[in-house]
Amino acid sequence: MQTTGFKEAKELIERVVKRKRNDGGYTNVIFLACGGSHACFGIGEYFLRKESRKLTVYNITANEFNCLQPGVFGENSLVFCMSLSGTTPETLHAAQLAKEKGATVVALVAEENAPLADLADEVAYYGIEIGNPASVQNQYVVLLLAVEFLQQTEGVERYDSMLNGFSRIVEVCERAKRQVQKRSIQFGLDHKDEPVIYTIGSGNNYSVAYMMSICMFMEMEWIHSSSIHSAEFFHGPVEVTDQDVPFLVLLGVGKTRRLDERALNFVKNYGKKITVLDSKELGIEALDDDVVEYFCPILLWTVGLEYSEGLAQAKQHPLLMRRYMGKVEY
Amino acid sequence: MQTTGFKEAKELIERVVKRKRNDGGYTNVIFLACGGSHACFGIGEYFLRKESRKLTVYNITANEFNCLQPGVFGENSLVFCMSLSGTTPETLHAAQLAKEKGATVVALVAEENAPLADLADEVAYYGIEIGNPASVQNQYVVLLLAVEFLQQTEGVERYDSMLNGFSRIVEVCERAKRQVQKRSIQFGLDHKDEPVIYTIGSGNNYSVAYMMSICMFMEMEWIHSSSIHSAEFFHGPVEVTDQDVPFLVLLGVGKTRRLDERALNFVKNYGKKITVLDSKELGIEALDDDVVEYFCPILLWTVGLEYSEGLAQAKQHPLLMRRYMGKVEY
Repeated sequence: MQTTGFKEAKELIERVVKRKRNDGGYTNVIFLACGGSHACFGIGEYFLRKESRKLTVYNITANEFNCLQPGVFGENSLVFCMSLSGTTPETLHAAQLAKEKGATVVALVAEENAPLADLADEVAYYGIEIGNPASVQNQYVVLLLAVEFLQQTEGVERYDSMLNGFSRIVEVCERAKRQVQKRSIQFGLDHKDEPVIYTIGSGNNYSVAYMMSICMFMEMEWIHSSSIHSAEFFHGPVEVTDQDVPFLVLLGVGKTRRLDERALNFVKNYGKKITVLDSKELGIEALDDDVVEYFCPILLWTVGLEYSEGLAQAKQHPLLMRRYMGKVEY
Repeated sequence: MQTTGFKEAKELIERVVKRKRNDGGYTNVIFLACGGSHACFGIGEYFLRKESRKLTVYNITANEFNCLQPGVFGENSLVFCMSLSGTTPETLHAAQLAKEKGATVVALVAEENAPLADLADEVAYYGIEIGNPASVQNQYVVLLLAVEFLQQTEGVERYDSMLNGFSRIVEVCERAKRQVQKRSIQFGLDHKDEPVIYTIGSGNNYSVAYMMSICMFMEMEWIHSSSIHSAEFFHGPVEVTDQDVPFLVLLGVGKTRRLDERALNFVKNYGKKITVLDSKELGIEALDDDVVEYFCPILLWTVGLEYSEGLAQAKQHPLLMRRYMGKVEY
């Protein structure tokens, strides 16, 4: 299976744009998925919200959409649906609903012959094998599609910088993986008996914090967790800070970094079990200044995966062990 | 201080709409606040997203907005800013930024002479004293302004039902408070030694779940918590379910109720410490069918406050006790 690269994304979006050429164009983009896939759409949502001067951009968990749709949803909606296996029932239902209402549907799947692909107007592919380069990560493909869509409709001001970013982020991720090899083992040893681990992040990295909480800690390692937005931290959650409470802080780059630094300073002052994933120190600045923040979640998720491996090994709790998912009916 | 009722909201919105009458009107509504106030904007965000066929509607934590604004933000933005004391620095900054860029700013505050009010084009007032009727609750005022804004621009299809809702929800809340008096004491006794309590909810009630997590449990009672969307629950968080893990499940009404029921059924099957706030059982159906779900967060928050009182008493940990907020610099 060929994952979707720049050329395929460009051509896919050309066909998508053509569908509505004589019909007022797209007025809104809606991302629909569940759990980790829902969070991975955050990178596209964030880019389009910041850069588009026209579009309404919503990222909604699929089953919430299935119950009640936004008022702007309809024939002028571009809907992206993502499911690794392409079989997630809630996402399949959402895609079907979107088709019925005349929206254009682009599916993102990691497997060939995925049922979700059959429902969609267009299909993009990503990969999930461990050791894959960042260029096949779902966040990478989502950002590629979002950038290409905006370029072909409103235009992207720093399009060349963005394209440079797509080519450079792959090597940045490879280097960062090597850089955290020992640290991630240490993270596992330090946290293997912790009942709770909080994650903190802002901007598009909040999605990575959310994924780490619900997928890595809760789903894979059965550890209590919550993702806290770096700015929201000071309006409630701050009061649970204590020397025995572990925080994993994601330090982004660009305009929202100061929010993360403020939260980090606080938990460093009043806590003791603080882990930092600092995108700057991990090499993100190899990308152009004016677009670097859009790529940050790709790096932080790559590194986060290493940390979850470290934790799984130290706990002797394999990442794929489940007690309910795929085992009991619900 | 007179809190904002129907007449004041209607006149306020008339002035707001007039400002842009010859200028293309408003294309987007942006809610800006922090923590509990940010969450309380959820009720307005949800109503406008579902009912408006044109508007882009975003609810953003103020300091994230201060770092980077959506591309649609500008002179055609209607910005709502809320801060109880009217002094929250992040929200003041956001209001100032919005004014500088030519947006129309409506402040919501609970105190007279609030600095936030001075920055804004219009001011609405709510109340926070315990024992207040629901009609002065900030969520009530937010919904009133959102409904009136849509009515005066696009029109609200079920406007009369909505107005009925505003008059009936007050009595529903009063009755529900009495109904849960004993239950909230019991909730406190049952949970006073719990290290973690999760909240679950969907639709506009997700905002209430979020508030209960970050304000009631984390901020006020220093208990670990996370709010989980009922639909997202099955895509990760489900794996932390166990007999010793407490869940507080908000059962909404209308289209998203089935999401809440599905999560509740699961935690009831595999957990033991389950508390349910069921809006139906608490009398929400006194409101008209076709609009009832828009009012649900007002009821659930009213009842949630009683439960937090019960918890504070059982823990002998006053709701207003803080170790960091207002005590240390950050």
